[in-house]
Amino acid sequence: MDKGKLYLIPSPLGDNDPTEVIPGPVLLSLQHFRTFVVEEIRTARRYLSRAGLKGKIGELEFHELNEHTDSATVESYLKLFDNGNDVALISEAGLPAVADPGAQLVALAHSHNIEVIPAVGPSSLMLALMASGLNGQSFAFCGYIPAKTDERRSRLRQLEKISGQLKQTQILIETPYRNDSLFNDILAVCAPTTKVCVAANITMPDAYIKTRKVSSWKKEGLIIGKRPCVFLILA
Amino acid sequence: MDKGKLYLIPSPLGDNDPTEVIPGPVLLSLQHFRTFVVEEIRTARRYLSRAGLKGKIGELEFHELNEHTDSATVESYLKLFDNGNDVALISEAGLPAVADPGAQLVALAHSHNIEVIPAVGPSSLMLALMASGLNGQSFAFCGYIPAKTDERRSRLRQLEKISGQLKQTQILIETPYRNDSLFNDILAVCAPTTKVCVAANITMPDAYIKTRKVSSWKKEGLIIGKRPCVFLILA
Repeated sequence: MDKGKLYLIPSPLGDNDPTEVIPGPVLLSLQHFRTFVVEEIRTARRYLSRAGLKGKIGELEFHELNEHTDSATVESYLKLFDNGNDVALISEAGLPAVADPGAQLVALAHSHNIEVIPAVGPSSLMLALMASGLNGQSFAFCGYIPAKTDERRSRLRQLEKISGQLKQTQILIETPYRNDSLFNDILAVCAPTTKVCVAANITMPDAYIKTRKVSSWKKEGLIIGKRPCVFLILA
Repeated sequence: MDKGKLYLIPSPLGDNDPTEVIPGPVLLSLQHFRTFVVEEIRTARRYLSRAGLKGKIGELEFHELNEHTDSATVESYLKLFDNGNDVALISEAGLPAVADPGAQLVALAHSHNIEVIPAVGPSSLMLALMASGLNGQSFAFCGYIPAKTDERRSRLRQLEKISGQLKQTQILIETPYRNDSLFNDILAVCAPTTKVCVAANITMPDAYIKTRKVSSWKKEGLIIGKRPCVFLILA
């Protein structure tokens, strides 16, 4: 029999109600799946409960796919699609496989002619980019940058240089407890005229999104704290 | 009195029902606005009609913001926010200000301390990226590439080189009637092992999303036609 399909299902970025940030038909479609490949099982169960599957969670099958999952395990997920069984991929927050694990499973699907169907949901990177007022015609996301101050500052200098040369908005993220040290390094390294957007708690009631030149940020000051945050730089 | 806020409201990517791709509360929130800044007035009216504002369209105020709008006109939109009046920015398809006009107005808002609130909706670039199985930890969007064959091929060579060096997925779009010539140039220029994803009519019932090596595309062949399409390359 044919293989099932791979559905990519986004999840909320924070503790808000899924109906606020995921289209209704996408949430309804979750009722259809028995098999889930998820970044973290506990978070996925909570999401599915809030999305209306509360009474059904016990009947569902969860498989983990995160940075600790080896390739052989991912390959073994191919059998989940047997007998026309559709599989849903869900990451911990936002879009699966974008700044999050999952691409390995999607690639496996393509190489076995399994249809891949992406659903609409919140992308913290794109919400931050659209709200930044920076260049949305040319941008790059480079993943996490080094945590050590020296390496980080040299990487930031490099990204600022690329940004200036290509007029390309650079999008950065960090684990929340390092937000303020990253922000301070950006202010220390970048030119006074370079624009920096700080976008924290996007889609939440207390969202904070501001774009300023480095020189203005230095005057205004800001403590971000441990809120999930996206940084954008345009030299 | 205080200035109003700037809301960034996504629109569907194709002719599908807005409720399929925009969260319900975002569509409901449209009832709240009297003032819209839009890429194309005709398209925006049709979207708002389908989103439940059919009887109200005549009472609404539309201002255009697209590639033909000069800076002075954009600056003049500042007065729309007077007396606490909230303004909605809508582009022709997908997210405003991402691969679409609008960033100028968002930047103006930041420079006048007007709060910017992005809403969730479909991003063709991110839907294509998540569904491609290519690297979602590092990617770049470079906007439209040159239309002339020689310039285009040399740009494609450059993007493939950057992609290989940085392990960075390159995201490309073209006006639909040039899809096939762009695709053929990609196949002509890129290495046989370079991966290419073609993502057409995303979110539509007849969506087509496939990732193959250049060598496989050459064997399989493909005619894309004039469907809206995102191309992704990973060397």
